[in-house]
Amino acid sequence: MRIRAFNYPTSGPADVSQLRQALDEGRYRAEDVLCVIGKTEGNGGRNDFTRELAMTALEHLLGPRLGLAPERVQDRVIFSFSGGTEGVVTPHMVVFVREPAPAPARPGLKRLAMGIGYTRAFRPEEIGRMPQVLETARAVREVAEGLQLESLADVHLVQMKGAIPASTFAEAEAARKAGRELRSDMVHSRGASALGVALALGEVPEARLSDDVICRDWSLYSGVASCSAKPGLERTEVLVLANSPAWGGELQVAHGVLEDMLDTRTIRDVAEQLGMRVTVPPDPKEAQKLVGVFAKSEADPRGSIRGQRHTMLTDDDISDTRYSRCVLSSVLASVLGETRVYVSTRAEHHGPLGGGTLALVARVGEP
Amino acid sequence: MRIRAFNYPTSGPADVSQLRQALDEGRYRAEDVLCVIGKTEGNGGRNDFTRELAMTALEHLLGPRLGLAPERVQDRVIFSFSGGTEGVVTPHMVVFVREPAPAPARPGLKRLAMGIGYTRAFRPEEIGRMPQVLETARAVREVAEGLQLESLADVHLVQMKGAIPASTFAEAEAARKAGRELRSDMVHSRGASALGVALALGEVPEARLSDDVICRDWSLYSGVASCSAKPGLERTEVLVLANSPAWGGELQVAHGVLEDMLDTRTIRDVAEQLGMRVTVPPDPKEAQKLVGVFAKSEADPRGSIRGQRHTMLTDDDISDTRYSRCVLSSVLASVLGETRVYVSTRAEHHGPLGGGTLALVARVGEP
Amino acid sequence: MRIRAFNYPTSGPADVSQLRQALDEGRYRAEDVLCVIGKTEGNGGRNDFTRELAMTALEHLLGPRLGLAPERVQDRVIFSFSGGTEGVVTPHMVVFVREPAPAPARPGLKRLAMGIGYTRAFRPEEIGRMPQVLETARAVREVAEGLQLESLADVHLVQMKGAIPASTFAEAEAARKAGRELRSDMVHSRGASALGVALALGEVPEARLSDDVICRDWSLYSGVASCSAKPGLERTEVLVLANSPAWGGELQVAHGVLEDMLDTRTIRDVAEQLGMRVTVPPDPKEAQKLVGVFAKSEADPRGSIRGQRHTMLTDDDISDTRYSRCVLSSVLASVLGETRVYVSTRAEHHGPLGGGTLALVARVGEP
Amino acid sequence: MRIRAFNYPTSGPADVSQLRQALDEGRYRAEDVLCVIGKTEGNGGRNDFTRELAMTALEHLLGPRLGLAPERVQDRVIFSFSGGTEGVVTPHMVVFVREPAPAPARPGLKRLAMGIGYTRAFRPEEIGRMPQVLETARAVREVAEGLQLESLADVHLVQMKGAIPASTFAEAEAARKAGRELRSDMVHSRGASALGVALALGEVPEARLSDDVICRDWSLYSGVASCSAKPGLERTEVLVLANSPAWGGELQVAHGVLEDMLDTRTIRDVAEQLGMRVTVPPDPKEAQKLVGVFAKSEADPRGSIRGQRHTMLTDDDISDTRYSRCVLSSVLASVLGETRVYVSTRAEHHGPLGGGTLALVARVGEP
Repeated sequence: MRIRAFNYPTSGPADVSQLRQALDEGRYRAEDVLCVIGKTEGNGGRNDFTRELAMTALEHLLGPRLGLAPERVQDRVIFSFSGGTEGVVTPHMVVFVREPAPAPARPGLKRLAMGIGYTRAFRPEEIGRMPQVLETARAVREVAEGLQLESLADVHLVQMKGAIPASTFAEAEAARKAGRELRSDMVHSRGASALGVALALGEVPEARLSDDVICRDWSLYSGVASCSAKPGLERTEVLVLANSPAWGGELQVAHGVLEDMLDTRTIRDVAEQLGMRVTVPPDPKEAQKLVGVFAKSEADPRGSIRGQRHTMLTDDDISDTRYSRCVLSSVLASVLGETRVYVSTRAEHHGPLGGGTLALVARVGEP
Repeated sequence: MRIRAFNYPTSGPADVSQLRQALDEGRYRAEDVLCVIGKTEGNGGRNDFTRELAMTALEHLLGPRLGLAPERVQDRVIFSFSGGTEGVVTPHMVVFVREPAPAPARPGLKRLAMGIGYTRAFRPEEIGRMPQVLETARAVREVAEGLQLESLADVHLVQMKGAIPASTFAEAEAARKAGRELRSDMVHSRGASALGVALALGEVPEARLSDDVICRDWSLYSGVASCSAKPGLERTEVLVLANSPAWGGELQVAHGVLEDMLDTRTIRDVAEQLGMRVTVPPDPKEAQKLVGVFAKSEADPRGSIRGQRHTMLTDDDISDTRYSRCVLSSVLASVLGETRVYVSTRAEHHGPLGGGTLALVARVGEP
Repeated sequence: MRIRAFNYPTSGPADVSQLRQALDEGRYRAEDVLCVIGKTEGNGGRNDFTRELAMTALEHLLGPRLGLAPERVQDRVIFSFSGGTEGVVTPHMVVFVREPAPAPARPGLKRLAMGIGYTRAFRPEEIGRMPQVLETARAVREVAEGLQLESLADVHLVQMKGAIPASTFAEAEAARKAGRELRSDMVHSRGASALGVALALGEVPEARLSDDVICRDWSLYSGVASCSAKPGLERTEVLVLANSPAWGGELQVAHGVLEDMLDTRTIRDVAEQLGMRVTVPPDPKEAQKLVGVFAKSEADPRGSIRGQRHTMLTDDDISDTRYSRCVLSSVLASVLGETRVYVSTRAEHHGPLGGGTLALVARVGEP
Repeated sequence: MRIRAFNYPTSGPADVSQLRQALDEGRYRAEDVLCVIGKTEGNGGRNDFTRELAMTALEHLLGPRLGLAPERVQDRVIFSFSGGTEGVVTPHMVVFVREPAPAPARPGLKRLAMGIGYTRAFRPEEIGRMPQVLETARAVREVAEGLQLESLADVHLVQMKGAIPASTFAEAEAARKAGRELRSDMVHSRGASALGVALALGEVPEARLSDDVICRDWSLYSGVASCSAKPGLERTEVLVLANSPAWGGELQVAHGVLEDMLDTRTIRDVAEQLGMRVTVPPDPKEAQKLVGVFAKSEADPRGSIRGQRHTMLTDDDISDTRYSRCVLSSVLASVLGETRVYVSTRAEHHGPLGGGTLALVARVGEP
């Protein structure tokens, strides 16, 4: 197998014209589209309907070509849209296509391998607690096992849309009175998803995990997770990117852990792992090797960065999520020379407090 | 003479504690404080009262020490506060002190020289038109002449707070009916101020200037201006930073023109002019040389950057001014390793469309 | 003919479940749906994609039932969605159905009559100038003539979505240099649409109209217009609500001109014209007669209301459009006892400066 | 004693010109100024510096006249400024003056009596728990006892600025690990303040109060509290408004409990208790009797109002606090005919869930 990836800028959330054209011209087949990851120009919050608009457009495009009703498309293709193209970010979508390919000519070389999976459906009271962590870990391992990896260390990005099953105001009050306040919010769902990845990949041993550490003990984290959470979603969607000796193609993925949002050292290191040269200013030829830039941002909850105060968390006009995406996107774009970057926020248990995860996918040549 | 500069982080807009302590400890004298340039954590817009709060605190601190009523302090010391510390910016103030100093030991070497001045008071109908340009140019030249420069090419930053005399709704309607719609808004005041600088320094010849080109012909610009505009202000305040062979001290200023907000090449070039080394990541030792980072940002009005669409201008929830400051501040902080950066926006006739001006002040050693 | 109207609250912009159920149950036919007017929970600005999401859902619902491709539905049914459900407003849609009906039993009595129409396509340079006014007036008259009215005074609401044909930055610059700056923005499109209505209905004589008065002379206005404007729309969509002796049904429409956003006297008067009693607090039985509340709001551009300063226009964090919709919606809801109100903003040439138009549709019984 | 009250519109947060003029003209004495309650045009959140600006201006005005250093003025005069003049609200301040007066001619009649007081300083761990409730109750009773009331039922408004002593990120983490998570936030401080009032006045019996019910059991509330909370404030400031047979003057206070933000019935009832007539539209003569309108607003946390969905809590661009203030202010202004209204938000344990408290102060004539 091999993965090909296409990074399309969009003119609006519902713009699927480049994907339509590629399918019409037979550049790849609808059946082979594995997932679409994209940034839309919403606020990234609860009232961000740009993601729904993008997914609706994709469902209506792909449904007929897959012989599926529009509302069934997401059972087969993962859509991972994140709102918020603050600053210089280009709204865009990356289409990942998984195709049959001859075995690599030089088998020692690893190339990008991808797989998707799902957890079982969760109940509201499981979210943000160990049941979510354990089931997430199981699903991640299941997907990774299908990719014929040499080692779990070859997993570089686990992109997830975490479950937040619906619950009512009355249910929430009841749980509160029972002393087990619901954690079925975005913060806890993201945190438990990330710890599930950390457990699956051996980044954190199971013995250190419990309900109490979730969104509390920030020394525990995954360096490859990128988790969002969606109110109303019953099961978590899992997408694993790794490098496998059994896969062909010209792509590789690499990752690093950002210490904070100005950590250009890690950005440089990850790019260099993929054979890119990093200079000031960036060389446009190097930037053309990139097909995907995926990162998690966080306004440091301690209110400072590198020892100096920041004001992202005390601004009641603009959410810190918008600021932190804007900051990290700007830094990534200036270092890498590419504005089609996917930064989502926040980053509970994704790297150290105030930091986040970073994964790059780039062309490194056929093996 | 010589300039010394002190860059103080603040805990809030009214925090003048470090300046108070410095004065109390006799590190410099209130009489020698030439100007205070700072960033406060407001929105940078019309309802940003953090600037007023900062200036009130400074007036009440300096007034008694200067033997002046608080409301008279600004006749003697220039306060240039800009709201908006989006992203990683540290709210801070830079205090510039002008003191007698022995003539430089090696007279060929130039060091930072600064002077302040004022235009005459403007009438509303002059704003954004040639009278503002011409009078601004006159005031800039007057200040520059006092600095014993070798050449006007040694002027690297003209910081201005531009006049916008008050006018009523009725006056505005009357002007509109007379076919000479008032331009006494921030956009035109900033634009005319910048062209005034360009004229004063020979960047644009007078023959190319007219009412018609102001905020119209974007090929005309200054590379050293940094102009804000303040409703209610009757005269423009002018602050000139240059390098002079007649001045001592350990500071120099350099500038460059940003082609766009991701222009790390120019950031590097300006830093290198001051003898700094620029690496990825930045060396903290180099960052410590900086005492001031001053830039103008602009969300490109054509709606794209480097050929890709951006969404800063079509977002009706968050002003493009906040985005562009956040972007450029993040890029400056990541390249220079310093979060105490002063970025103000917008940048009409400050560099090319979508670009801006950049000036750095750094310690280069005694001459 | 007769009009029936159904006011459905929605659970989100894409929620068309109540309309689907009504069609499935045969309460009315898709062929008879004349228009759908609704409020969605976006920001009402340029980046409000909730309207597109709502219309996409309607297109996919109605297309198959009308035998039309989704993208052709709006040639047949008018969708008028306005973003912004600030405060207590219930997101909702009003479905207007036009059906054959026996002639009214008592022919003197007038009942709600509705018709739709379109202007020709506009060029960018026509927008905000007389060509838009004249063609809009023509289209309004054409629709009104089809309703068998006794008099044009029986027209109480002209709901329009105004054209703003796309133009490029370069075209805009060219027009500017040619001394005919483009007015193809929302402000001017709305203003010219409203004056087109005023001309059609005799509220303003043609002799008083010219390019110069558009968005200048605020003494000229329509009392029945409700115009939005949509970038990218080439022709203006027109919807006329009037009372006609030739139509049956149980509905009537009435209108008034709001002097300002606190004008409860006019709200009361319009309700009383439809036979409703207005008390403090409102009687829920009276509120049940209402099927549609349509108004235009405006933060008074002079910066005051009833002689006191307001701060809606100097707030750079929140648009005045959101404030004024919130204010008028709250006042309407508290006086009428109904939170399903449709308030759109701004109101250039819709009532006097700082005021707006108001139309109510209510059940008055079969004639 | 008697209270006189003066309601001054302001041109900006620092505008104290009308108060200065009144003092200069001897209309009342600085020594008699008991408190100043005002609305400023900030966002009402953590980064609202308009309150600090207003209070700084008042300190510098009153300090010299009281023979106090500016920073000592608030030990003697209570300043209660609330940010947020959304919609039609006029930024304003109400100055309450307490002066010696002859005993009322007709002793049965009650007139407005006011007193101020303070709690002891709190530790962070006491906030939002019973120690705050009990000490607040003690302070309220102490103030009320000084007013020579016939009954505690004559207390109609307890305006408080609640303590939130500073704590560090590390302290908060430590408390969390100890199983007693800090509640030293605005929500819990306001809630405990309100329950303190409820306890003091017998609205809720002590037996029903415990740490567990605070911000949990919403059936417990005060109908006369109006509490804000201020990070950094160590003790709570208390201001009591009541009607006393021992006081003279021409003012009275009355209150009611708003069931929700559209509760015009209660607004009418409270106004009528003060002898005002409420009509649609309001009679300007009646409005002139008012000297203060004080209310607490709340976006119903259940997400609906009167059975219909609202979107105030799912909007990530604009805080529900701004919406709810805008709604209730608009309703109050339209019913009472007065835009100088003081609405603060949120309303934990101030009236039922989704409701709030309302107090009016009006001229009823000398006793």
